[in-house]
Amino acid sequence: MPADMDAEQFRAFGKATVDYIADYLEGIRDRDVLPSVEPGYIKPLIPDDAPEEPQDWQDVLKDVERVVMPGVTHWHSPQFHAYYPTANSYPGIVGEMLSAGIGCIGFSWMTSPACTELEVTMMDWLGKLIGLPQEFLNCSDGPGGGVIQGSASEATLVALLAAKERTVQRSNSSVEKSGVLGSMKMRLLTTDENCSFRGSTLEAAIAKDIEQGLIPCYVIATLGTTGTCAFDNLEELGPVCIKNNLWLHVDAAYAGAAFICPEYRHHMNGVEYADSFNFNPHKWLLVNFDCSAMVKNSHDLVDAFSVERVYLAHQKQGLAPDYRNWQIPLGRRFRSLKLWFVLRIYGAQGLRDHIRKQIRLAKDFEAMVKADPRFEIVTEASMGMTSFRLKGPDHLTKTLYEKLISEHKIYLTAATFGKKFMIRFVVCSRFTEEKDIQFAWQEICRHIEPVEGNENDREKLIEIPSLKTNNCSTKESLRKPVILGNSR
Amino acid sequence: MPADMDAEQFRAFGKATVDYIADYLEGIRDRDVLPSVEPGYIKPLIPDDAPEEPQDWQDVLKDVERVVMPGVTHWHSPQFHAYYPTANSYPGIVGEMLSAGIGCIGFSWMTSPACTELEVTMMDWLGKLIGLPQEFLNCSDGPGGGVIQGSASEATLVALLAAKERTVQRSNSSVEKSGVLGSMKMRLLTTDENCSFRGSTLEAAIAKDIEQGLIPCYVIATLGTTGTCAFDNLEELGPVCIKNNLWLHVDAAYAGAAFICPEYRHHMNGVEYADSFNFNPHKWLLVNFDCSAMVKNSHDLVDAFSVERVYLAHQKQGLAPDYRNWQIPLGRRFRSLKLWFVLRIYGAQGLRDHIRKQIRLAKDFEAMVKADPRFEIVTEASMGMTSFRLKGPDHLTKTLYEKLISEHKIYLTAATFGKKFMIRFVVCSRFTEEKDIQFAWQEICRHIEPVEGNENDREKLIEIPSLKTNNCSTKESLRKPVILGNSR
Repeated sequence: MPADMDAEQFRAFGKATVDYIADYLEGIRDRDVLPSVEPGYIKPLIPDDAPEEPQDWQDVLKDVERVVMPGVTHWHSPQFHAYYPTANSYPGIVGEMLSAGIGCIGFSWMTSPACTELEVTMMDWLGKLIGLPQEFLNCSDGPGGGVIQGSASEATLVALLAAKERTVQRSNSSVEKSGVLGSMKMRLLTTDENCSFRGSTLEAAIAKDIEQGLIPCYVIATLGTTGTCAFDNLEELGPVCIKNNLWLHVDAAYAGAAFICPEYRHHMNGVEYADSFNFNPHKWLLVNFDCSAMVKNSHDLVDAFSVERVYLAHQKQGLAPDYRNWQIPLGRRFRSLKLWFVLRIYGAQGLRDHIRKQIRLAKDFEAMVKADPRFEIVTEASMGMTSFRLKGPDHLTKTLYEKLISEHKIYLTAATFGKKFMIRFVVCSRFTEEKDIQFAWQEICRHIEPVEGNENDREKLIEIPSLKTNNCSTKESLRKPVILGNSR
Repeated sequence: MPADMDAEQFRAFGKATVDYIADYLEGIRDRDVLPSVEPGYIKPLIPDDAPEEPQDWQDVLKDVERVVMPGVTHWHSPQFHAYYPTANSYPGIVGEMLSAGIGCIGFSWMTSPACTELEVTMMDWLGKLIGLPQEFLNCSDGPGGGVIQGSASEATLVALLAAKERTVQRSNSSVEKSGVLGSMKMRLLTTDENCSFRGSTLEAAIAKDIEQGLIPCYVIATLGTTGTCAFDNLEELGPVCIKNNLWLHVDAAYAGAAFICPEYRHHMNGVEYADSFNFNPHKWLLVNFDCSAMVKNSHDLVDAFSVERVYLAHQKQGLAPDYRNWQIPLGRRFRSLKLWFVLRIYGAQGLRDHIRKQIRLAKDFEAMVKADPRFEIVTEASMGMTSFRLKGPDHLTKTLYEKLISEHKIYLTAATFGKKFMIRFVVCSRFTEEKDIQFAWQEICRHIEPVEGNENDREKLIEIPSLKTNNCSTKESLRKPVILGNSR
């Protein structure tokens, strides 16, 4: 075995790995969604040091099943209903392979024009698919345009930094860049009974901030919150932001993908007020992580992030985006290949079918819960998620939740709403079918089946030490990171 | 073609892509390193909108050669000598494939124990390989440990935020978190004649900051700068940081990989003073981008980044790292697979051979430059890089540089050192051999061959409009982002 694996060996290794991935995903239904290992499980399975001598790829690939698989939580199992989906599709995997194979680092146009230009075009394809206004597109006149970030957190931070910079630029001369606008204070605002953040709440908060000598600067509105998939009211928030010169960032990480279906676009009414809009094709649009699409006014980003160096300069500057100025890192992978592959091989129709099917499955699940008098729905099904609990005190639901998790057959996450403990159910895997929804429901019911009629017996039977939830809350009633500013 | 590509189609598509990648890399020597397209080239090659109907994967793969390849800058071409290397290897590509295939998002132990635990072990393998002190390792007692970040920028920002938080915690009660330590002011400090940042410079800067009512907080030292691959003096800087309670972050993005060879470890003498240390296996250690290794005191990171929510809680908390608290994003890929594959299939020996070979090739190139009286070396070969210029006024070298770039045969980057324009030459590709170094040198000489003896003729012959370099400089003599604090 030569130290440097050659192309022939790669062909064999790569193809064996393609087969391994296909076998894994074809058989994923037969694996428990949660692993049965304890922390530290990997230590006895793997040497403490890297080997001195090169090893055969065959041995390495064998170890994937022996060492890695026992500890994998199978996010693409049809029994995975936790968090939100993370995307996975065959075209997405191949796009990732090719990105790795080409291995270019497209931080400026010159460092790989294809990497930049395919991204520009894919952001336009995406923006049009979800029906964003023209000014969000690269192909429009003006500074609008899209870029792929690694995650919604990164997109939110990038927008925050740009908002801060813009506010400093706009402010009068008494506002010194490094002085008045220092650390950004974050304020969480309350939402209405539907978990929606409203314009009047924002107005009141702005007035209070200004009264206290703060400079409001940046507002984050969410379309599809993590806890309950709630939608903020952009039509109310937008004009308030415009009036007060605040940067409005719209985080539609999960739910944004649904806007490829026209019947869901009403949720983003008012998006035209936004300074930046972000959604994650790597969540619900079958493009493997990471691929977080962020759009709008590129000038503001470039103003905030541009760092020029001779070694980064090139002769075609200004004619195409130099994406390094739109993000925090310098380096970037060729992630638009994944988007290109997925959008073409599914087609817009195939993607709409995927979204609609998952929303339908969530409704099916909700119907089962509603038909059972022991349970109650906490928040109505929204997109591919719903949430439920056992009627009665919290510990019943907590105990049920613990049992479900400890058996590893289905994976759900918990949250609190108001002051009630609830279980979130999300349709995540593209392999999830009606039979899997039924299986999940049977699993849930199986743990409470012995209990009927008598509330006391029921509590007794399912009582086990409760989950530690101290200091943990989704705080859906107080969840908005909304205004940021600093003392004058 | 069904909307959802099935496993059989994926096997065919995936294997065809493996062959495409192998063919591409085997034939990369025959492609011009720089593409010949103009900005906007992709627009006529690709529709303006995503297709409605699903398309065949065969057509998509064919379009990679038609649409993408004409616009690729071939970072793994043996004629690529620009920037610094970006890693690429067959085991790294397969690791990336498998990461995409498994597609788990390991932000907490529970969400994929294997993803967390393999990363913990790989960070230990890496840390030991480069000879980091025990306290940097996960396997040591105490809070030391490693994590994979996306890039050195991200690692530097993460350390900055943690440093700020720690300083606030340490400060006396008059230092209010959101008040005194607001925006972090950045100060660039001067280096010595070898571009090394020295302890006395730091001490003087700290004194000046304190005098001005600033609170010094964070120092960035670099091992292997971008401009000239210079090394800062950790043995001097470290004690100054300790004495003044400053967070010392060591950025060894490129050169850190060389520390797998004991003969280069003297460059990091003093690293034991560092609060955080970062190097990029995705630069020089054959692990595809992104894979930026960051280590040291995990408590400080967790204190700064921890955000608890019920839906993120799990029963095994505290027994293994929840890596979401060590980074900015929530989501993360299974990047340790790439490290595992590369470290095993090359073995430590294979990787050391790679580093030593590239350093030797840079010395070979330097020898050719030194032997030619028309040229001068600007900074001596350091690791895999050297820099040179034509003797005489800058415009000679600028013109030479422009000609080289415009012909697309070799790719180099320019920089300024002192006030002189120079060309950086870096051995980047793992395919680069002695013959490629000779080819590069011939290419360089070819453009000045017509000129001999007469300086005036020479200037005339190679005069073309000069590169725009206004506002662009590596500023090697004034390049350190070193101290950050804020007005009291």
